[in-house]
Amino acid sequence: MDNPFPAVNTAAADEAARVKAADRAHVFHSWSAQELIDPLAVAGAEGAYFWDHEGNRYLDFSSALVYTNIGYQHPRVVAAIQEQAGRLCTLAPGFAVDVRSEAARLIAERTPGDLDKVFFTNGGAEAVENAVRMARLHTGRPKVLSAYRSYHGATSTAINLTGDARRFGNDSATAGVVHFWGPFAYRSPFYSATPAEECERALRHLEDTVVFEGPASIAAIVLETVGGAPGVLVHPDGYLAGVRELCDRYGIVFVLDEVMVGFGRTGRWFAAEHWGVTPDLLCFAKGVTSGYVPLGGVAVSAAVAGTFARRPYPGGLTYSGHVLACAAAVATIGVMEEEGVVEQSARTGAELLGPGLRALAERHPSVGEVRGLGTFWALELVRDRATREPLVPYNASGADNAPMAEFAAACRKAGLWPLTAGNRIHIAPPCTIAPQEVAAGLEALDAALAVADAHTAG
Amino acid sequence: MDNPFPAVNTAAADEAARVKAADRAHVFHSWSAQELIDPLAVAGAEGAYFWDHEGNRYLDFSSALVYTNIGYQHPRVVAAIQEQAGRLCTLAPGFAVDVRSEAARLIAERTPGDLDKVFFTNGGAEAVENAVRMARLHTGRPKVLSAYRSYHGATSTAINLTGDARRFGNDSATAGVVHFWGPFAYRSPFYSATPAEECERALRHLEDTVVFEGPASIAAIVLETVGGAPGVLVHPDGYLAGVRELCDRYGIVFVLDEVMVGFGRTGRWFAAEHWGVTPDLLCFAKGVTSGYVPLGGVAVSAAVAGTFARRPYPGGLTYSGHVLACAAAVATIGVMEEEGVVEQSARTGAELLGPGLRALAERHPSVGEVRGLGTFWALELVRDRATREPLVPYNASGADNAPMAEFAAACRKAGLWPLTAGNRIHIAPPCTIAPQEVAAGLEALDAALAVADAHTAG
Repeated sequence: MDNPFPAVNTAAADEAARVKAADRAHVFHSWSAQELIDPLAVAGAEGAYFWDHEGNRYLDFSSALVYTNIGYQHPRVVAAIQEQAGRLCTLAPGFAVDVRSEAARLIAERTPGDLDKVFFTNGGAEAVENAVRMARLHTGRPKVLSAYRSYHGATSTAINLTGDARRFGNDSATAGVVHFWGPFAYRSPFYSATPAEECERALRHLEDTVVFEGPASIAAIVLETVGGAPGVLVHPDGYLAGVRELCDRYGIVFVLDEVMVGFGRTGRWFAAEHWGVTPDLLCFAKGVTSGYVPLGGVAVSAAVAGTFARRPYPGGLTYSGHVLACAAAVATIGVMEEEGVVEQSARTGAELLGPGLRALAERHPSVGEVRGLGTFWALELVRDRATREPLVPYNASGADNAPMAEFAAACRKAGLWPLTAGNRIHIAPPCTIAPQEVAAGLEALDAALAVADAHTAG
Repeated sequence: MDNPFPAVNTAAADEAARVKAADRAHVFHSWSAQELIDPLAVAGAEGAYFWDHEGNRYLDFSSALVYTNIGYQHPRVVAAIQEQAGRLCTLAPGFAVDVRSEAARLIAERTPGDLDKVFFTNGGAEAVENAVRMARLHTGRPKVLSAYRSYHGATSTAINLTGDARRFGNDSATAGVVHFWGPFAYRSPFYSATPAEECERALRHLEDTVVFEGPASIAAIVLETVGGAPGVLVHPDGYLAGVRELCDRYGIVFVLDEVMVGFGRTGRWFAAEHWGVTPDLLCFAKGVTSGYVPLGGVAVSAAVAGTFARRPYPGGLTYSGHVLACAAAVATIGVMEEEGVVEQSARTGAELLGPGLRALAERHPSVGEVRGLGTFWALELVRDRATREPLVPYNASGADNAPMAEFAAACRKAGLWPLTAGNRIHIAPPCTIAPQEVAAGLEALDAALAVADAHTAG
C-alpha cells in the first residue's frame, strides 16, 4: 500500500505470482524434487539476455541448455516461423514437403563426408536411440560402447549410454551398453604426463576393451565429439581419428553425438571438423533450430543408409521431419551462414573467451583448468590447484554442494545466468554474443570467483 | 512443348520434382525401405484436406497420423503460434513461464481425477518412457505389463511395450516387459460368446498373469484406453474399471496411453471418461496441439507426484514444456472448448460415421466388423465373414498385402487419403470434419470397398 510505484510493480508482481502459482500447482519439472525447487518466473528474452517480470535482466551464459546458438528471438528466424505457420504447420512424415527436403539438404551439405541422408527426430535423445538401432541392425551385433563422463539423453537407450550419475538406477549392462574411459588429461584415468600420451593410452584402453568385449559383438562406439554436460571435454588431437581407425578395423559403427556441440558451438558447423573425422552416424538437435521449434536427427552415411535401401528401417515417430521445425532449421542455418555465426563463434573463443578465461584463472586460485573451443568453455573449480581436489565432490547435493551453490548465486546476483555442473562452470553464451557482452560476463565471473576462492586451500 | 497450359503446369511439376528429388536424396523416412518408397509431394493443407503441387486434393481420413484433431491450419491456432513466436519461442525447462503454466493448468483441469501435474515431453514415446520410469521408481518394482495388439512408440522402452510387429528384433523380456492379451471380442483370445464374457475372461487372464509374474515385481500395467494403431479396439464395458481395481488390489501403477485417443478423438476430452476410470498416469501427445508444434506429456497423480516431492525425479529433456509448443496447446484447447470440438466429434460418430459405416458394412461382404467412437473407427476387412479370415495375413507385405494396397489405391483415386493398417482401414478424420465431408468420404469408401469385395470368398 505504501509502495511508491503501486500500479507498475503490483501488476508485474501479480503476474509473476500467478505464473509461478500455476507452475507450482501443475508443472512437473525435469530432474527435480518438485517441492524443493523455486523456479524463476521469466517474462521475456532477446539475444543473449532474458528477464523476469520485474525487469531484472540476466546475461545468459548457458544459452538455455546450450542450444540458443543464435540467441533468443532472432528476428529472421521468428519471421520464418511466422510465415511457415501461416502456410503449413504440419504434415505426416511420409510425404515429400519443400521445407523438409530443404532442411535435409542444408544439413547434409554441412555434415562431414558422406553423411548425406537425414532421419529427423524431435530431439537429441531420440536421435541417439535411432542411431543405436541403425548401428545394431547394420552390423547385426548387440553391444554398444560409450564413455564414462558422457551424457546422451534420458530415454532408455540414451540414459543407459550416458556415463554420468543421471543413469544411476538404470541397468546399462542389461541394455547391452559397456562403458569405457575416454581421455581427460587433467584427471587422467591413465596416469599420463602429456596430451599425446593421454591420447595414446586412451586409445589402447579402448582397443583393449573392444578386444575383451569381443569385436564381433560390438555394434557401435558412441562418443560426444566434445564432451558437453560432463565438462567440455576436448579430446586430445589424434583421439577421434584413432577411434575412427579402430572402428574401421573391427567393423564397428562410429556414432558421434553432436547434439550439444553441432551447429557452431565449437566454432565449426560440426566439432568433428576440428580433427577432420567423419563418423558413420552423427546425432544432432539443439542448435539446428536454436531450439525455437524442437528438432533433432541423425545424419546417416551411405553405407548405413544402404542397409535400409530395400529393407524397412524399423523405427519412426509421428513428427519426423516436422514441417514447422524444418522451416525453423532452414531459417536458422540461413542466418548462421549469412551472418557468419560459425566464424564468429570461433573468433569469440580465440580472441575473447579463451584469453579472458585464462586471465581469470591466473587471478583466481579456485580455477584448476580452463578448456574449450569457440563459445563452449569450462572452468574446473578446485579446492587446491596442486592436488586438483574438486571444489565439491562428484554428484554432490545439499550442504556438500554449498560452494558451487554460493558461486552460482553470486553469478546471478551479478546479472549473469551461469550453467554449473558438478565442480565446474560451463561457459556457453550464444555463438552470436557481442564483445561487450563477453566482457560483461567475464567481469561478473571475476566477482563470483571470489566466492569460490574462499573455499580453496590457499 | 505442346502442353496447352505450359506456364502453370510446368512450374508446378518442376516444383514437385525439385521437392521430391531433394527428399529422395536427403530425407531418411520412418518405417520404410528407403529405395522402395515414392513419397507424394504435398504442397498445402487446410481443414480436412491437403493437396499436391498439381492441385489434386485429398480428403484426409487419417488426420496425418491421427493427430490433426482440429484439422490443418486452424486460423486461431496459427495466429497464436505467430503471436507467441514474435514474443518468445523458447526458454530452458527450469523456469516458470506464462504459457507453460497455462498449458499445464488447462490440461490438468481436463484430465480425470487427481492427475493434476503435467510432465511435458516432445511426443508420445517420451511420455511413455517417463511414465514407466515414474512407475518403477514409485513402486520400486521392475516389471511392466502391456498388451499384445498395442503401440506405444519407438524409443527403447516404448517399442518394447508395443505389442505389434514393429517391436520384432527388440527384446521385451530383457527390458522387463511382459505382454498379455487384452479383450477383443471379434477375434477373442478367450473363446467368449459376448462382450461381457470377453471382459470377464480378459480380466481373469490379466489377473492370472499378474499372479504368475508376481505382483510384488510389477510396477505398472500400461494400456491404450482405446487401442489405436492395433485397430481401434474399444474395450468392453467394465474392462478398464476391472484393471483399475486389479491395480489397486496389487499396488500396481495404472498407466493409460491416450496419445492417439486423447483430446477429442473419441468424443470425450480423454477416452477414459467413457468408462469413468482414472489412471495413475496418463500419457498424451498428438491432439494436445493437433501436431502444429510437437508436444507430449504425462499427467501425474498426486500419489506418484508425491514420490518426487523431496526426491529428484531422474528424467528430463531439453524441451520439456517448450514455450512455442505450450502456446499451441493453450490455443488448441481454447479452440476445442469454444468451438465444441469434443462434442462435435461425439456427434459425428453417433450420427454420421457410425451409421454410415454400418450401412457400408451391410453392402460390402469384405467388411467383417465396424467399431469405433467419436471420429475414430475401423473397418475390419475379411475374406470371409463366416470364418473372419483377414483380407491379408498379419504383418503382410509385398504380394501378400496386395488386396489392401489395391483398396488403398482405390481410396486415393477417389480423392480420399486412407489410413490402412494390416487388414483394416482406420477412419480418423479431423474431429471438426463437416457433415458433407463425412458424406464425401463415405462415398469414396463405398467405391473403394468394391475392390476389397473382389477378394472375398463370396
